[in-house]
Amino acid sequence: MSKQLNSGKYSEIIQGGVCAARGFKAAAVKAGIKVSGKSDLGVIYSEYPCAAAGTFTQNAIRASSVDWCHTLLPSDAIHAVVCNSGCANACTGGKGAKDNESLATLTASALGIDHHSVLVASTGVIGELLPMEKISSAIPKVVSTLSPDAGLQFAKAIMTTDLVKKEAAAKVSTQRGSFHIGGTTKGSGMIHPNMATMLAFICTDAKIDSSLLNDTIKKVVDQTFNNLTVDGDTSTNDMVLVLANGVSGTTITQSNIAAFEEGLFLVCNDLCKQIAADGEGATKRVEINVTGAKSAQDAQKAAKAVANSNLTKCALFGNDPNWGRIACAVGYSGAEFSKVKMSIKLCGIEVFEDLQPAKFDYKKVHQLLKEKVVPIDIDLGIGECGAVAHTCDFSYDYVKINAEYHT
Amino acid sequence: MSKQLNSGKYSEIIQGGVCAARGFKAAAVKAGIKVSGKSDLGVIYSEYPCAAAGTFTQNAIRASSVDWCHTLLPSDAIHAVVCNSGCANACTGGKGAKDNESLATLTASALGIDHHSVLVASTGVIGELLPMEKISSAIPKVVSTLSPDAGLQFAKAIMTTDLVKKEAAAKVSTQRGSFHIGGTTKGSGMIHPNMATMLAFICTDAKIDSSLLNDTIKKVVDQTFNNLTVDGDTSTNDMVLVLANGVSGTTITQSNIAAFEEGLFLVCNDLCKQIAADGEGATKRVEINVTGAKSAQDAQKAAKAVANSNLTKCALFGNDPNWGRIACAVGYSGAEFSKVKMSIKLCGIEVFEDLQPAKFDYKKVHQLLKEKVVPIDIDLGIGECGAVAHTCDFSYDYVKINAEYHT
Repeated sequence: MSKQLNSGKYSEIIQGGVCAARGFKAAAVKAGIKVSGKSDLGVIYSEYPCAAAGTFTQNAIRASSVDWCHTLLPSDAIHAVVCNSGCANACTGGKGAKDNESLATLTASALGIDHHSVLVASTGVIGELLPMEKISSAIPKVVSTLSPDAGLQFAKAIMTTDLVKKEAAAKVSTQRGSFHIGGTTKGSGMIHPNMATMLAFICTDAKIDSSLLNDTIKKVVDQTFNNLTVDGDTSTNDMVLVLANGVSGTTITQSNIAAFEEGLFLVCNDLCKQIAADGEGATKRVEINVTGAKSAQDAQKAAKAVANSNLTKCALFGNDPNWGRIACAVGYSGAEFSKVKMSIKLCGIEVFEDLQPAKFDYKKVHQLLKEKVVPIDIDLGIGECGAVAHTCDFSYDYVKINAEYHT
Repeated sequence: MSKQLNSGKYSEIIQGGVCAARGFKAAAVKAGIKVSGKSDLGVIYSEYPCAAAGTFTQNAIRASSVDWCHTLLPSDAIHAVVCNSGCANACTGGKGAKDNESLATLTASALGIDHHSVLVASTGVIGELLPMEKISSAIPKVVSTLSPDAGLQFAKAIMTTDLVKKEAAAKVSTQRGSFHIGGTTKGSGMIHPNMATMLAFICTDAKIDSSLLNDTIKKVVDQTFNNLTVDGDTSTNDMVLVLANGVSGTTITQSNIAAFEEGLFLVCNDLCKQIAADGEGATKRVEINVTGAKSAQDAQKAAKAVANSNLTKCALFGNDPNWGRIACAVGYSGAEFSKVKMSIKLCGIEVFEDLQPAKFDYKKVHQLLKEKVVPIDIDLGIGECGAVAHTCDFSYDYVKINAEYHT
């Protein structure tokens, strides 16, 4: 896809998270999984059956929760998601897979529904078993507190090394009526999606069948979560799950899919920016906007190479207008570019053109690099395609967090 | 290639660097290119014409010195190498290319040889022009001090953020006689060779034609420098250059190429380990040994994925036996592995098997991780092929060096 879906023709960003979509309830409790004692078990529930789809980590070693959802989806009969944080239940063998199924069964039983209508997600330390006793007693509690006002509580219950909760929502208006899309996500490290992403949960009250929903989420994830990186490591537990319960009465078909795509893009893109800003140790968010590429693939290659360059990200931490490291990353990305027309702007100021440094005010750019959001604009000068990648700078604290935190 | 060339059947490591091979002289001076005032201009010279070959960075943006050598090589008529440190002369346009040719011409004129017999290498800050006045007056000086005892001075003159000089040499004995291979290299950051490497200079007094030399250096670099990473960034200036002057009288043909390959491997492998140990901010060297792979490519993929995992490298800095991050990197590497037989050893102790953590003494491995060299052994359990990757841990100082040093 060569065009960004961000025109804003049909959609506006609104307040809220998963419960911004009508007919969805959420809840969260402190089950005692996290050592910190913070809330760590959340449920999303829709009384009406949902069309649901997902994208999954491409890591060959993946958690049983990912296997569980991958087997069930796409589906037109999903009612709930249960997510725990603190224990990833990855690399835990046959016992881990059994425990994962129990999570679904216990939640289904508390809700009075079939366990194949419950999706499961887990995040936290790899290689440890779920504390099933604690979870068994917590699930009836969390289900009993389900409420359309508890989206925020759910968003908090899925955090691990995240410093802030992450939510986004949009209202989309079409000729056939309007609907809502609301989402939440978690993620701070081990973020380098490869046709997949961190944990993200998106709810919508649009009416859409699971096959069209499946195609659309893949398309949108490819332009959002798949262009996000914190540290170049692809996790074992990543998933984006999307649930559509149809409560708005607005039906989505091929004729108005553009509006749904746009709204979904807005929500996913907003959540991506929130993850980048809250990257482990991040002092600033970085948005790499590549234009003038021969193909969307080339644009993505160039944008992601810069987003993954440790040297570039250290320079940004040091507020150093180091166009050399950015050009170097474009050079090894494999993307085609014009050696004459390729140019790089840092914070809106041209720093590189004609394969040489441009004349620019070093001190001014150094000052601008201290802002909370740093835009890098790269024109490859050889075509019409583009891509945007999201990342953050690379600080002492990234090393500190990951030398001390055992995941 | 599925077998490591490290049998040691023909070769023994000896003391010395480029001048360990007979008939080679070296020299170095302080030309004033480096702000620090340290020695920054070196020459290697052989009175006898050399067969010469090289491997070059795959970065699409590359310095004119790399273009210069790439055009000349392979060749059977090389006499000299001139290398400056402090200024990479990359991204410097037409003026930079002219200056590069002047470097060759000035050196050739001082030596009384053709300028097409002079190879040029540069390393240092990107985007700045060479100080040609300083260089013009320094070249006659450096040429006048050429000596077979100055290999060490040359090794020091090519350093940038390196903390220690790096040299290795081997004596190789064959039925047709013996010969020597000596080399030096520089590199500490922006190291992630991609069919190429950092700057390395290898001299041998074996007699070998440039075509066979070219095939052999490519094969050996693929098993050594191409499996080395410090930070995942591929530089604009990387090269390995190898010169053979035939002074030993020992002729290498297909019949005894195995001995030459082995010696070249020993020298290049030793230099790789020295670069890894001196990686920017490194507190320890890490050697990742993958066995049991279906193909050499798979082994290399798995070894390099672990070597490039920021999370793994932060954990090693923190002496954390974090098998989860190693397994995770193997999982996303794209290499095939057995989910039952794959195993991981850290410092010789099994920490992961059957896709689950092994029972091991955490405190003991934590202690062992404090050593200066950390071996990681990964058996993919699905074949007979192997590969070794070289890297270092990831510390606060890597971030500090690269937030403050403008390259």
